[in-house]
Amino acid sequence: MKMASLLGRVFSLFFEYDTPRIVHIRSKKVGVINRLLQLCIVGYVIGYAIIYQKGYQDFDNVQGAITTKLKGVAQTFNLSGDGKNRTWDVNDYVVPPQENNAFFVTTNVIVTPRQQMGLCEEDINVVGANCTDDPSICVKDQPLMTGDGYMTGECINSSRYPGFKVCQVQAWCPTENGNLSAPRPPVIGVAENFTVLIKNNIEFPKFGIKRRNSPNNKDNSYLQNCRYNIDLDPQCPVFKLGTIVSASNIRSFDDIAVQGGVIQILITWDCNLDHAVDTCIPVYSFRRLDTNDTASPGYNFRFARYFLDNGTEIRTLFKAYGIKFILTLQGQAGKFNLKPLIINIGSGLAILGIATVICDIFVLYVLKGKALYKEKKYLEVVGEDAYQDIPGLNMKSGD
Amino acid sequence: MKMASLLGRVFSLFFEYDTPRIVHIRSKKVGVINRLLQLCIVGYVIGYAIIYQKGYQDFDNVQGAITTKLKGVAQTFNLSGDGKNRTWDVNDYVVPPQENNAFFVTTNVIVTPRQQMGLCEEDINVVGANCTDDPSICVKDQPLMTGDGYMTGECINSSRYPGFKVCQVQAWCPTENGNLSAPRPPVIGVAENFTVLIKNNIEFPKFGIKRRNSPNNKDNSYLQNCRYNIDLDPQCPVFKLGTIVSASNIRSFDDIAVQGGVIQILITWDCNLDHAVDTCIPVYSFRRLDTNDTASPGYNFRFARYFLDNGTEIRTLFKAYGIKFILTLQGQAGKFNLKPLIINIGSGLAILGIATVICDIFVLYVLKGKALYKEKKYLEVVGEDAYQDIPGLNMKSGD
Amino acid sequence: MKMASLLGRVFSLFFEYDTPRIVHIRSKKVGVINRLLQLCIVGYVIGYAIIYQKGYQDFDNVQGAITTKLKGVAQTFNLSGDGKNRTWDVNDYVVPPQENNAFFVTTNVIVTPRQQMGLCEEDINVVGANCTDDPSICVKDQPLMTGDGYMTGECINSSRYPGFKVCQVQAWCPTENGNLSAPRPPVIGVAENFTVLIKNNIEFPKFGIKRRNSPNNKDNSYLQNCRYNIDLDPQCPVFKLGTIVSASNIRSFDDIAVQGGVIQILITWDCNLDHAVDTCIPVYSFRRLDTNDTASPGYNFRFARYFLDNGTEIRTLFKAYGIKFILTLQGQAGKFNLKPLIINIGSGLAILGIATVICDIFVLYVLKGKALYKEKKYLEVVGEDAYQDIPGLNMKSGD
Repeated sequence: MKMASLLGRVFSLFFEYDTPRIVHIRSKKVGVINRLLQLCIVGYVIGYAIIYQKGYQDFDNVQGAITTKLKGVAQTFNLSGDGKNRTWDVNDYVVPPQENNAFFVTTNVIVTPRQQMGLCEEDINVVGANCTDDPSICVKDQPLMTGDGYMTGECINSSRYPGFKVCQVQAWCPTENGNLSAPRPPVIGVAENFTVLIKNNIEFPKFGIKRRNSPNNKDNSYLQNCRYNIDLDPQCPVFKLGTIVSASNIRSFDDIAVQGGVIQILITWDCNLDHAVDTCIPVYSFRRLDTNDTASPGYNFRFARYFLDNGTEIRTLFKAYGIKFILTLQGQAGKFNLKPLIINIGSGLAILGIATVICDIFVLYVLKGKALYKEKKYLEVVGEDAYQDIPGLNMKSGD
Repeated sequence: MKMASLLGRVFSLFFEYDTPRIVHIRSKKVGVINRLLQLCIVGYVIGYAIIYQKGYQDFDNVQGAITTKLKGVAQTFNLSGDGKNRTWDVNDYVVPPQENNAFFVTTNVIVTPRQQMGLCEEDINVVGANCTDDPSICVKDQPLMTGDGYMTGECINSSRYPGFKVCQVQAWCPTENGNLSAPRPPVIGVAENFTVLIKNNIEFPKFGIKRRNSPNNKDNSYLQNCRYNIDLDPQCPVFKLGTIVSASNIRSFDDIAVQGGVIQILITWDCNLDHAVDTCIPVYSFRRLDTNDTASPGYNFRFARYFLDNGTEIRTLFKAYGIKFILTLQGQAGKFNLKPLIINIGSGLAILGIATVICDIFVLYVLKGKALYKEKKYLEVVGEDAYQDIPGLNMKSGD
Repeated sequence: MKMASLLGRVFSLFFEYDTPRIVHIRSKKVGVINRLLQLCIVGYVIGYAIIYQKGYQDFDNVQGAITTKLKGVAQTFNLSGDGKNRTWDVNDYVVPPQENNAFFVTTNVIVTPRQQMGLCEEDINVVGANCTDDPSICVKDQPLMTGDGYMTGECINSSRYPGFKVCQVQAWCPTENGNLSAPRPPVIGVAENFTVLIKNNIEFPKFGIKRRNSPNNKDNSYLQNCRYNIDLDPQCPVFKLGTIVSASNIRSFDDIAVQGGVIQILITWDCNLDHAVDTCIPVYSFRRLDTNDTASPGYNFRFARYFLDNGTEIRTLFKAYGIKFILTLQGQAGKFNLKPLIINIGSGLAILGIATVICDIFVLYVLKGKALYKEKKYLEVVGEDAYQDIPGLNMKSGD
């Protein structure tokens, strides 16, 4: 009998329903406040969270690979002081030949040709190399902080700056002339006309969608002839460097070509896969990442090519100024999915409760009929362990 | 007295409790609907959000370093037209010698040996170089868009294509023969047998856990002899390139070796730190990132080696086709934490309110006893500023 | 009339308000429990979610570019067995000359000078090269797994290990001596004194804030003379490599310089844009990413320089041990925004409902007066389709 009773009770649980008892107040003031609050919340949930933020979609971030190929050729004259023309093709001005999601294009260069191991004067611009006044500052077997080699201890006449004396160093000789500033106009200013083909294959793994950044219906000759133009051909994956630079809000190409700089190329794939998959195309944007400081401006680095000349190792030192392009892939795809929609609606309903909390404050503390509303809303129950109020103040318990 | 009254009131606030008044409805229909809805919500919160999504865990993303080391050697014959064997070791076929989270392995190559500055014929495949019909298209001191140098203005007989004339250019001569396509079979097809050792040290900073991707109990000879095999030895960090390629769903190694390509190596550390830390091991997966387009397929780039030959600068130009491997570290670790558990349970309880909202619709508008339920649930209160309904319709206020 | 009635009904909807009816229980026990729970929830929402987690702010992740420039020079003696001093400057010890968000500094090196294509003995340490006991293991035209070339099939006397025989290979000869371990002390141990200038321009695009990591009010000479010091000058962007290494918890510079390693330089911009923008400055931190394993410790790679010597191609092989520095940019900026504040307060109010759920359990099932409370809280309604309980047990329906 006890068992049956328990079973019956458990069973009856499935056929019960609890719903709150409600005071239905007919009042213009609180009604309007209530509906306005509800409208705000419903508007926010439906308008913003669900429609604007696409709360009915499941999302996936873009993944993919970017590779680049540069085209273009430049010519310089008398760069190494040899009085000769020199042609620069991709293999000469892109250093290193390949990078991951980046490429560097040399736009300006200072060449120090035919350096070899030996003893020679330190560059006078190096702090601590000018020993005109005090030969003892050349400490044997010590390097200077920003110098080119270890000092021999000798203080020798400068051949570059007659009348001055500099410390002698063991180094790659002759040392680079620190007095030279970046040539103006830039040596490879024609880089403005170089082009880069950006190949970008992307994937939204969750949705099994693969896309690439060149129009599907176009052939090889399209790729050879088209040029990216934000208005006329925003899908052509071949970019003139000058176009990229001016799209980065740089006034003239020489502004960045002389001292170098860093430009980010953003490839953004924001795709709505509820629409046709052909509408899933990239948007390119460009911006300069470095600022044109007075202290150490632009972007440059040095590299050397090593040679053997009649058994002696020599090297040609390049101080390469140029533009470092950083390629960034970003974006996401959305597709209708029941789960986020339900979660958004659910949390929207939960938030609706806030309207009641705020309206109750009006109803119970602000409106004229507050005493009536309070009486109807509350049922006072005094428990056995009720707090004993100061006598005579326990008004509420008399309700 | 006023003060004491206020104090008493404030004090009594701590010994009060408000709980909603409930209509307890005993009805099979609405009871079943109610319980089913509650079951769905509780099932979702406990089953999905807490158990499946590990809502009881705190998470941290993996951080770490990946370095790689390649092994393997290849031999080519008559590559530069010198009739000689040439051995390619790691230093020859990995360009550049080290990259950050990536490495490139040359699998195919076109060599243009001994180029030097001079005047020579432009490659006839360059658009605008074929001047057979119109010598005036060779404009002095102008480069061709995809050409190798600046034109001299001369239109000369082609030595490569007898009967044709091409513009003369100042360039690295001879220019690369654009008519050559990637050799088939690939020159370094034995790259299939090369191996790469991937060293990966990771960290979950929040939990103070450090791990690496080679089994702890193994010695140096294990690393020398093991080979990754998804079934037999999935923890060996030494990978045959052929294994990686076939795991990327590429039919044969030559499919990617001839034209090159991009393959992503994903190292995934998904660790449940509630289990033994020894179960925290990486999973490797592989996929090809580029697609085999007809337009500009595969992956290749050019680089040059510069030499001095009797005082003249010459260079050897390599067009290197190959596989670019991109290493991606991903994953997270989870560990039991009270905070996310409480938040999940709390939001679960909040969502339970949705069941009541839906059931109320049934109870008040659908079920046969709706009039009774409505009467019990609602207490009508007409405020002072009640909206004056059209007379005779104001039925509800008569409740 | 019907239409008017409907319109009136719809209209009156805007002037109604539903609020739950409440049982107001005066009881010390449940009151205290209730207030404590509410305090926890309010404390969590205000103290943790809003104040500590800055729930009143909108956030944006940092974006930017990092470039680096190294300074310093080293000298080695008799490195290629030529008995000569050799100066190493930035162009010699940084390989490759520029990387994206990383740089490598050579600290130790093994040089194998003047290799050329030819036939010579395989290194005896290569597995399978020692043919002293069995000349037949040298299989013609086969490479050894970790070898330097293809075997000729000959088993020749070793010149390096008199009394032993090794397989002859066609390779870059002589092959690297695998018996040499990393020199101790490291060849370029003075790298400890090298400095690196880190230039970091960042942006919080959402807030339109651009910053850089060198103090604005400082001039060029500050950058030339300052050194990063966590206590004395934590904003100087010039770092001594020795400072970075010791800040990475490496006991001595030689600990990492001999075998090489990987160190991460974290640049963290955590900015509160509600404060003055000048307080938005980076914090640098450093940590070693690789572990000092016994198996294949440290970080090294090989690269070669190619020369022409009287028409013959030769190369110098470098096994470079060194420190790979990986630069990571992280952080976010926060700024006051009404939207996240409202969402946090809203979800806080929603969570408050949990207190009621828990207190109800006490009130209805634990406290002494539970029968009274239950009676006041619940209004029993028996629907038409009520579940027929086992007779005599249906006590509750008699309420």
